[in-house]
Amino acid sequence: MRIVDVRETTIPIASPIRNAYIDFSKMTASIAAVVTDVVRDGRRVVGFGFNSNGRYAQGALLRERFIPRLLEAPPDALTGEDQTNFDPHKIWAQLMANEKPGGHGERSVAVGVLDMAIWDAVAKIEGRPLFRVLADRYRGGQADARVFVYAAGGYYYPGKDLAALQREMGSYLERGYTVVKMKIGGDTLDEDLRRIEAALAVVGSGERLAVDANGRFDLETALAYAAALAPYGLCWYEEPGDPLDYELNAAVARAYDAPLATGENLFS
Amino acid sequence: MRIVDVRETTIPIASPIRNAYIDFSKMTASIAAVVTDVVRDGRRVVGFGFNSNGRYAQGALLRERFIPRLLEAPPDALTGEDQTNFDPHKIWAQLMANEKPGGHGERSVAVGVLDMAIWDAVAKIEGRPLFRVLADRYRGGQADARVFVYAAGGYYYPGKDLAALQREMGSYLERGYTVVKMKIGGDTLDEDLRRIEAALAVVGSGERLAVDANGRFDLETALAYAAALAPYGLCWYEEPGDPLDYELNAAVARAYDAPLATGENLFS
Repeated sequence: MRIVDVRETTIPIASPIRNAYIDFSKMTASIAAVVTDVVRDGRRVVGFGFNSNGRYAQGALLRERFIPRLLEAPPDALTGEDQTNFDPHKIWAQLMANEKPGGHGERSVAVGVLDMAIWDAVAKIEGRPLFRVLADRYRGGQADARVFVYAAGGYYYPGKDLAALQREMGSYLERGYTVVKMKIGGDTLDEDLRRIEAALAVVGSGERLAVDANGRFDLETALAYAAALAPYGLCWYEEPGDPLDYELNAAVARAYDAPLATGENLFS
Repeated sequence: MRIVDVRETTIPIASPIRNAYIDFSKMTASIAAVVTDVVRDGRRVVGFGFNSNGRYAQGALLRERFIPRLLEAPPDALTGEDQTNFDPHKIWAQLMANEKPGGHGERSVAVGVLDMAIWDAVAKIEGRPLFRVLADRYRGGQADARVFVYAAGGYYYPGKDLAALQREMGSYLERGYTVVKMKIGGDTLDEDLRRIEAALAVVGSGERLAVDANGRFDLETALAYAAALAPYGLCWYEEPGDPLDYELNAAVARAYDAPLATGENLFS
């Protein structure tokens, strides 16, 4: 059982949208295909992975460090003891060989793309959906039949006015979403409050609306927004400041009683 | 005043040495030249920067994101108000445009290479050593006439025995170093203690020897080494565990009375 090739491509996902921190005018993402020598249902098993937007494609790191480590590893360093499938944990160890600890960032994105592809291949080799594979391995076979999903939008966009924001939020409700999220912090507090109230007029209540500052605020601004947001009873207030600014996050948590979210930009 | 070109090259610095965490068999580093349109002493001012070993060259990130941002920035976004020199802080802001917070790592290396080159150019444009420029800007003209330096070596190396380690440490003393550092954690505790005692026999006292585990240890091992190292009175015990494992670092700090060091792999 071998990985015979790994192909990766950088996909432009440029867009005029922006959040409080970055614009997406030059945004890219990586997509990778891990080609195995395993055949299922008459077809070669290929696992696919890609990364989320916002942290750019990592094709160069994949090509320079991570794909070579995968292709150069001895086959028994990649497979489980009974040789019936690949072992994602052993593969992770191969990928992270000769990587210093600390400073997690771009390389987590690169390794994550391959990790996703490996898990996809593992599930295809078992001939079962990945959620079932994971439930059997890690939750004694228990899997949730339903998961919470929400629509993440409400970006800033050239010429986008309150009516356009309302149409966007309404379109999510029409598609069946019960919670929507919008960006904040890309304009003044007053203007953002007008945007939030416009969105609330469509979604009906604070419980159905989350806001995301994408780590933009300093402590003073994060607290000013916290005070202004409190009366709305929002579903959550996401990433008020830098995720590594523990003091800021602790201070906001003390000042803001409703749910806070962070973690999207913390890597390990 | 403009930056007319930025050139970067990836330099292989492969070596058979290893520390407790990584080997350097495929190690690379980036070197960058920031070419300005400023002429001093009849020559065009070029600033140079490079990154330390251990975290690989970042040529791809430089080419894909950071160099284009520098070359595409309007000239007045790069210079100080009086237009007499470049402004490294404004340049840093241009480099980090459209970068999400959190997950600092590879990109800190890439930006650091350019930042070093910019400061080099700034000092050359002022026609003064950089330490004087920095002292005048940030320390009221005060600069230390002497700085502490030490020799960082004592790597693991195929076939390197205690006598070879002693010869290496002796060679540092001959070159005038008063403190030397050696790697630990790449062998058993017992073997590392033999290596430390061999080094101490050469350098003379614990105050002249530092040890560096390069983030290798789990809590139990970090504490076992701490207990074993304590009697030697070493100059410092560096990076016992993952720099982002605050709990481990706090526990080792409580257990170990002598100096601890970390930070090389923390980025902001």
